[in-house]
Amino acid sequence: MVIDTNFYMKLALDEAWKYQGLTYPNPAVGCTVTGKNGEILAVEAHKKAGSPHAEVEALKSAYFKLTNDKKILNITSSSQIHEYLLENHNNCFNSISIFSTLEPCSHIGKTPSCATLISKLGIKKLFVGSLDSNKEASGGNEIVENSGVETKNGVLEKECDALLKPFNLWQKKRFVFFKWAQRLNGTVDAGIISSKKSRILVHAMRDVCDLLVIGGNSVRVDRPTLDARLVDGKAPDILIVSRNKEFDETIPLFNIKNRKVIISDNFSVLDNYKNIMIEGGENMFNLSKNIVDYYLCFLSLQIGGNNNFTNKDDKFSILNIQKDEQDIIMWMKQANNRGNK
Amino acid sequence: MVIDTNFYMKLALDEAWKYQGLTYPNPAVGCTVTGKNGEILAVEAHKKAGSPHAEVEALKSAYFKLTNDKKILNITSSSQIHEYLLENHNNCFNSISIFSTLEPCSHIGKTPSCATLISKLGIKKLFVGSLDSNKEASGGNEIVENSGVETKNGVLEKECDALLKPFNLWQKKRFVFFKWAQRLNGTVDAGIISSKKSRILVHAMRDVCDLLVIGGNSVRVDRPTLDARLVDGKAPDILIVSRNKEFDETIPLFNIKNRKVIISDNFSVLDNYKNIMIEGGENMFNLSKNIVDYYLCFLSLQIGGNNNFTNKDDKFSILNIQKDEQDIIMWMKQANNRGNK
Ligand SMILES: [Zn+2]
Ligand SMILES: [Zn+2]
Repeated sequence: MVIDTNFYMKLALDEAWKYQGLTYPNPAVGCTVTGKNGEILAVEAHKKAGSPHAEVEALKSAYFKLTNDKKILNITSSSQIHEYLLENHNNCFNSISIFSTLEPCSHIGKTPSCATLISKLGIKKLFVGSLDSNKEASGGNEIVENSGVETKNGVLEKECDALLKPFNLWQKKRFVFFKWAQRLNGTVDAGIISSKKSRILVHAMRDVCDLLVIGGNSVRVDRPTLDARLVDGKAPDILIVSRNKEFDETIPLFNIKNRKVIISDNFSVLDNYKNIMIEGGENMFNLSKNIVDYYLCFLSLQIGGNNNFTNKDDKFSILNIQKDEQDIIMWMKQANNRGNK
Repeated sequence: MVIDTNFYMKLALDEAWKYQGLTYPNPAVGCTVTGKNGEILAVEAHKKAGSPHAEVEALKSAYFKLTNDKKILNITSSSQIHEYLLENHNNCFNSISIFSTLEPCSHIGKTPSCATLISKLGIKKLFVGSLDSNKEASGGNEIVENSGVETKNGVLEKECDALLKPFNLWQKKRFVFFKWAQRLNGTVDAGIISSKKSRILVHAMRDVCDLLVIGGNSVRVDRPTLDARLVDGKAPDILIVSRNKEFDETIPLFNIKNRKVIISDNFSVLDNYKNIMIEGGENMFNLSKNIVDYYLCFLSLQIGGNNNFTNKDDKFSILNIQKDEQDIIMWMKQANNRGNK
């Protein structure tokens, strides 16, 4: 195995993908910090809006490893971590390298700018995957370079761009992902398929997305709630795609406060939303092909059920694989580039 | 993410699993070497019999990283690497730690003993996953400890034992694994499913295994060759499990030199073999449940085909996931412990 800059960036990428879909209105970003001899000091990711950016989380962990100063472990607010590091770094960072999947932000928003922080800590090298095309936050590399830090761009750029793409699409117009759960033998019916941990992750994604799309048949058969109760989150608006507009109004999803439910035979309402999750079966999979950017499959390692997808010409390429104790979680895109704008 | 001894051992484990099934009559073993500050100097595995052991491969890579002495890169024979390291190490290893999934061997076989080598290089620490129950090769830890090296056992022991288990079963009696290829939607029919790279790996496994088991129906329908031509390897003996003993003798598998083909309605002939791969469909999957130790699934990320497995009560737990450019390769065992002696 080759241990090089790509290896360290890959660690940052894998960590960041764990929070894909959870970070809006921020991008999913991962960051590795290595020490003088290339030892790994930290691998962290941005977890959700309001939490510290990936670079700040990683610098915090690295600072503790380098100094053993336990005080920093109790500081969770991003501004306070910035301040603490600036006051106490005492040149401990002067041999470190930072590997960030995205150019450090230059924008002072909910948290101070990472680029400014990095430029003041006297680090040795900054490796960046994707450049930031966001007008508000871009320019970070320049700030860091101007402070005398050696900067290298384009490390695993394709992979980092694939991590960033949902955010970029969301910014420009909207990001749409199709999520489904299946067993190893492909079946998608007959009861709960995913582990509790996977279902909690889906609820966290529902909490962050603004529209959840589902087929009329699924609503009639499964009578779902489609909220985010497992994470005490907000329930997204619902689009039920159905030609028949009549539904039993006692189905739980219709009775959630502060939620809009739209019933339509087409997807035009998507224009009013930006972060859109489609949960569906094969019909919805086929209907939505031209509007879906990424696919998210929760694969449960069991054999059972009855009905599997029966398409004939879909091919995916893998973007990221994770595994929790029971399920395999795969982010994918269509390999033929269909639906990948 | 926590960067600790488990992290380094996990790297060794992942590397070793790439060669699971290819190393007989040796076990699959992985090894990570870290430097003074915990920087990763090497992650290597034992690749096949006659090649250097994992520790030797890793020490070779680490030596080059530490010294930049290019001469070692041209040395491939294990004995010569041993000699070269012993003559030239010049105390460059005095701060390194070794993480080996298996206790270093004490046995001088095709290659000299790793334990002796490690004991003479003046390393700092040895971390071991599984202890070696092989009478010929065990005792390695003691040799290393007696030389004054600090040794810690049981790092990710469960995971390291799962890596070692095929070898242990093979030694005691036999190891049986069931291999199949399927698409994402579970289908196993309708033409070639796996990537070229996956098929090459399967041929490499056939080259090393001594018996390949297949169902009579597969033989009649697919008319396979079941050799190891993609790696210029030897074709294993074949057991066709079938009540009807008549086959068209022009089916290619019957016409391979130096191969025995056995046709039987049961598995009793397995007693004469030690490393056994079953390649089959759902019938064979069900027939062989009580004799299979591990499962190996090549998952192709496409939707297509017609027929999937339809069992009702199989649950797997994952042992290792790898991904090549196109397929996902999963080693699994039955989660209910059925067939896991
Ligand atoms: Zn930032
Ligand atoms: Zn050895």
